[in-house]
Amino acid sequence: MTDHTLKAFDDEIVELRGLISEMGGRAESAIDRAVEALSRRDLDLARTVVAEDKRIDELEIAIERLAVQIMTLRAPMADDLRETVAALKIAGVIERIGDYAKNIAKRVPQISRSSKIEALSVLPAMAELASDMLRDVLNAFAARDWQAAVEVSNRDRAVDDFYNSIFRTLLTFMMENPATIGEAAHLLFIAKNLERIGDHATNVAEMVYFAARGEYMPDRERGEPAV
Amino acid sequence: MTDHTLKAFDDEIVELRGLISEMGGRAESAIDRAVEALSRRDLDLARTVVAEDKRIDELEIAIERLAVQIMTLRAPMADDLRETVAALKIAGVIERIGDYAKNIAKRVPQISRSSKIEALSVLPAMAELASDMLRDVLNAFAARDWQAAVEVSNRDRAVDDFYNSIFRTLLTFMMENPATIGEAAHLLFIAKNLERIGDHATNVAEMVYFAARGEYMPDRERGEPAV
Repeated sequence: MTDHTLKAFDDEIVELRGLISEMGGRAESAIDRAVEALSRRDLDLARTVVAEDKRIDELEIAIERLAVQIMTLRAPMADDLRETVAALKIAGVIERIGDYAKNIAKRVPQISRSSKIEALSVLPAMAELASDMLRDVLNAFAARDWQAAVEVSNRDRAVDDFYNSIFRTLLTFMMENPATIGEAAHLLFIAKNLERIGDHATNVAEMVYFAARGEYMPDRERGEPAV
Repeated sequence: MTDHTLKAFDDEIVELRGLISEMGGRAESAIDRAVEALSRRDLDLARTVVAEDKRIDELEIAIERLAVQIMTLRAPMADDLRETVAALKIAGVIERIGDYAKNIAKRVPQISRSSKIEALSVLPAMAELASDMLRDVLNAFAARDWQAAVEVSNRDRAVDDFYNSIFRTLLTFMMENPATIGEAAHLLFIAKNLERIGDHATNVAEMVYFAARGEYMPDRERGEPAV
């Protein structure tokens, strides 16, 4: 590559990282606000989260376009190629995380203001674990820090444990209060969405690891999704 | 491109299509067999579906590698570039569909042999709709047939309607039979997995449309995921 193409390439990689960072920030915020809307039964906030998911989708398209442009015009090698492919794939994962947050927000109107289901008070802590995983794994991507990525993937077990506990609690609650089964089913799905966000953050961790090292994260360090 | 590179490029595109077709066939079969395992409570078949998901994951890696190789070495233009990017993204979606099928298979041991939950007899028909969508949208990709892709995306509504009906039926059943709530919750998630497979087939339809036409499928033809 000439100095000129090298400069253009570096600019594009910086732009790509910036887009991933913006997209990730929006997805984190969507998770946090969806669960806040749920806790406060704030229908306006829930609608905002749903509406703003469009912006996350647009960012995915922008990232894909730029990553493909880099691959076809710059034909990057080794580390740079792996980082570009990782950016493309990570954008796809963040888009799905945005969808999970949107799905949580869409369920808010199904939960009555007077609901006494105890899982409701536990979900924000679970959401924080998942949202922190997303933030930290994107920082690991920006820093090309594969050790930080492994650390994030190890935290998925805590999210799975949270989910299993909420699942059992909700089933017990349903059995004892059959009238609340409708609401409780929506909370089951919300907990499942958060559990899936943890899985997806773990997938991103695997992509960061591969981009940084050129080999796949060993299986014993990878989380298997919970049933 | 020289005749020689053109030939190599054509060979690679043919190989890419072949891999997508094999991967898609495996995912379809995984859906069908997971639901068959559920209907017959066949734990051996369920374990086979779980074990064979590894092969689907390996095919995703092979497709990604080949698509990136085509983009960086051949720098394809217009239609060919869109098809290559679509193949890369479709492989990611099929991988997730495989995960949904695996997740259904993993839940089979949670449903007792004597279960009388009526949703069980309806799930195979719903699975067939979703599995047919996947088969037809991959045929549309192979044929670069955007009209067939639109037709598949329109069928997602039927899958959503099925899901909503099963959701209501299961909730009623749970209220009337609190002792079955555990099993019924697993069936709720299985129905949700099938509904998500329909959404993902719709996403593939949008990718096929874009690859063939160079513009996005109009919104009115796109299915919004159900809550």
